[in-house]
Amino acid sequence: MARPTDQVLSSLQTRLDKAAILAGDAIDPRYSDDLSGVPGARPELVLRPRNTHEVAEILNACNAARLPLVVQGGRTGLSGGARVLAGEAVLSLERMTALGDVEPTASTIIAEAGVPLQIVQEKADAAGLVFGVDIGARGTATIGGNIATNAGGIRVLRYGNFRAQVLGLEAVLADGTVLSSLKGLAKDNSGYDLSQLFIGSEGTLGVVTRACLKLHPKPVTQSAAFCSLPSLDAAFGLLKFLRGRLGNLLSGFEVILAPLMGDMVAALGFTSPVALSSPVYVLADIQGMTPGADEEVFVETLSQAIENGLVEDVVVSQSEREFHALWTLRDDVNRFLFAEDAMLSLDVSLPLPRMGAFLAMARAAQGRADPAAQDYVFGHLGDGNLHYVVRTDRPDEVASAVFDCVAKNGGSISAEHGIGLDKKAYLHLTRDPAELAAMRRLKAALDPRNILNPGRIFDMPPAPLNV
Amino acid sequence: MARPTDQVLSSLQTRLDKAAILAGDAIDPRYSDDLSGVPGARPELVLRPRNTHEVAEILNACNAARLPLVVQGGRTGLSGGARVLAGEAVLSLERMTALGDVEPTASTIIAEAGVPLQIVQEKADAAGLVFGVDIGARGTATIGGNIATNAGGIRVLRYGNFRAQVLGLEAVLADGTVLSSLKGLAKDNSGYDLSQLFIGSEGTLGVVTRACLKLHPKPVTQSAAFCSLPSLDAAFGLLKFLRGRLGNLLSGFEVILAPLMGDMVAALGFTSPVALSSPVYVLADIQGMTPGADEEVFVETLSQAIENGLVEDVVVSQSEREFHALWTLRDDVNRFLFAEDAMLSLDVSLPLPRMGAFLAMARAAQGRADPAAQDYVFGHLGDGNLHYVVRTDRPDEVASAVFDCVAKNGGSISAEHGIGLDKKAYLHLTRDPAELAAMRRLKAALDPRNILNPGRIFDMPPAPLNV
Repeated sequence: MARPTDQVLSSLQTRLDKAAILAGDAIDPRYSDDLSGVPGARPELVLRPRNTHEVAEILNACNAARLPLVVQGGRTGLSGGARVLAGEAVLSLERMTALGDVEPTASTIIAEAGVPLQIVQEKADAAGLVFGVDIGARGTATIGGNIATNAGGIRVLRYGNFRAQVLGLEAVLADGTVLSSLKGLAKDNSGYDLSQLFIGSEGTLGVVTRACLKLHPKPVTQSAAFCSLPSLDAAFGLLKFLRGRLGNLLSGFEVILAPLMGDMVAALGFTSPVALSSPVYVLADIQGMTPGADEEVFVETLSQAIENGLVEDVVVSQSEREFHALWTLRDDVNRFLFAEDAMLSLDVSLPLPRMGAFLAMARAAQGRADPAAQDYVFGHLGDGNLHYVVRTDRPDEVASAVFDCVAKNGGSISAEHGIGLDKKAYLHLTRDPAELAAMRRLKAALDPRNILNPGRIFDMPPAPLNV
Repeated sequence: MARPTDQVLSSLQTRLDKAAILAGDAIDPRYSDDLSGVPGARPELVLRPRNTHEVAEILNACNAARLPLVVQGGRTGLSGGARVLAGEAVLSLERMTALGDVEPTASTIIAEAGVPLQIVQEKADAAGLVFGVDIGARGTATIGGNIATNAGGIRVLRYGNFRAQVLGLEAVLADGTVLSSLKGLAKDNSGYDLSQLFIGSEGTLGVVTRACLKLHPKPVTQSAAFCSLPSLDAAFGLLKFLRGRLGNLLSGFEVILAPLMGDMVAALGFTSPVALSSPVYVLADIQGMTPGADEEVFVETLSQAIENGLVEDVVVSQSEREFHALWTLRDDVNRFLFAEDAMLSLDVSLPLPRMGAFLAMARAAQGRADPAAQDYVFGHLGDGNLHYVVRTDRPDEVASAVFDCVAKNGGSISAEHGIGLDKKAYLHLTRDPAELAAMRRLKAALDPRNILNPGRIFDMPPAPLNV
């Protein structure tokens, strides 16, 4: 019997164009890795379909030959989900970049999986609308990858996560079956919503090929406030106060904890908008439709927050330039951290009432695992999502210690980065055996030969030969 | 071998309290039916657990005995999903009515499946928050039933459907396995989001026992406008104009088409707020946080809509009393229609750009199916959702004709009422064989003996005896 790779090659060579199949030396090393920084294997093949029909042909051939596939979008993942394991072929959606027109009445758009997020954002903007998800990797990360990982980012507080932006999907199952739900209906309760199943399942249940996305009215006012606060409890108090007073006008609520703020300002050499003597810093912003009134109620509410003792010092943007300058400061956190060595980057979420207890417990545990460890914590406080970054020479020990504290406080070991290969060993800490067994039942039902992103999220027992 | 019912009885009698098992004459006839108006069979048993553990015991026993179960909440469904078929037992969640406290920082609440929707709304309101779903059956419909059918209603435009309110679920699989995800995390990408699978699956994949629900800041301003419009296209134009100008301030956008408006006013004998000479009427409202400014921008925007020719006549509420009076008029539609005889009630959704074509096509087709048919159309226009009600003596012929037009225009045969038993025969019109096969694979994976709400949504082949 031919090797699986040879079987797939001979089956596909007559059906796909030349650029669709890369083999041997024609495979660029970039296909081996994602942004997680761990080297991957050289893929058996790189398969680059141009449309959904070709994706179906590829999956059908790989399933018949039992050749495992790793699906790649923009390869910006941080959990090793797109990293190649020995013996795997790559299915890259990079040639599927068609983007439909904005449907102006329903405010929707249909994008192929390989379209970068930023292209969708720009097309929405040109139509006077806004797309609800924004993340740092917007220029490279693709819609397909965003859906596979249910991307989050800085606007979840306002618009929800990526799941909330998806009106329907087209996806291909391991055996080549195409499931299409691109009607663009806001309400459809006719049988199971199969699209939901693929969102956040990291390419293990099917390959997303197209999506019908929801767009939102574009805000005409925006204003940001950078605040220093006396405590984490004050940050929760401020969040509740702003939500109660501003409602959906509140659009972002990001936190930076000491010593990250001070170390970043020192390393990057800029002037902080507020004094650097506080334990907690918050960037909050509003986006609305009523010029004048929106900014007025924002400033008035912030003044009351100072009177209430929730805020020590605050700078409010007075122009679009200042608005973007405050957000640049938030983005500088990544610029600072990516330039540092020996950084362990964790991405956790906690129930808001448990976050304070978690932080105290995690910092103590991290100190026991590595007395020299230094944590840098920031994130999307409004969503309970902390990026918990640690400078340490003992990343495995510190990760174990911190994740253990996440579990003890009812949190999640991955808020928005997914599990991939790299967090699989920790998944049992926060998902119980019944949940893991149910996930495996779904995986076996839709991908019985386990060819799609095998070993991502969880391992499967070997597929029986008669399947 | 004992009959399945006797097996279950002997297995459960020692494990549950007396009130948990009703048999024979102790079974009230109300357990046979839901609001769909078709008589159901007498259940074999009625099982009324007090908690999740007892639900698991019941399912385990029924699964072992292969006794099929129909799950019941408030029995307000309109598609026959909770109607009893011969040989089925009833699993009623009516004793599971525990409701947790509002978590004030995260704005969440945990409810058992049997809690009526209105109780959650009231508890949110008392905490200065609002729950995002509102439907006519709020007093009787339960959280579990709302989740099983992904309830919609009048606030989907603002807050999304029921799915968007669920942060996590506890559900019990057919074999008694309990899946619990009640952490209350806004972001959790650690493995599959199993909760999503149960939402809208009409109790066929598992029994929802508890839910962690998201609450929203309570708006402090509200204002409603009742408008007459020259055409359906003007209604789409108005929707787009209001969304673009008001953004998320726009909270509802309901439509009533002629002749429903005139016939209702005549039948119920009240005075219409606008002249009755238009083909289309819209109730739009705003809910916001900025007293004065919100109402001002609403009135100003409506004035522009008149100038643009989108609106002929408009009445804007000037007080809370007037706000509720305009909404009462919208609710009167149901009061009028429920009092009429021989009404076929369909609930469809269409892509907004196809709705006009659909209406023209459907009215022609309905006239061919029954020349005496009279349609009364209203609904949630912002969601593409029309309640298409027809006075006819030929309901089957008219339903077929209208659903066929839904399919031809890329719509859904059930926007928010679900499929149940009554729309199963039409499901193939809008869900293709690949989708139906994928649904069956999921059903077989989670309920291999097909004991949970069998025959709702779709039929399964007989379960093999070795399963």
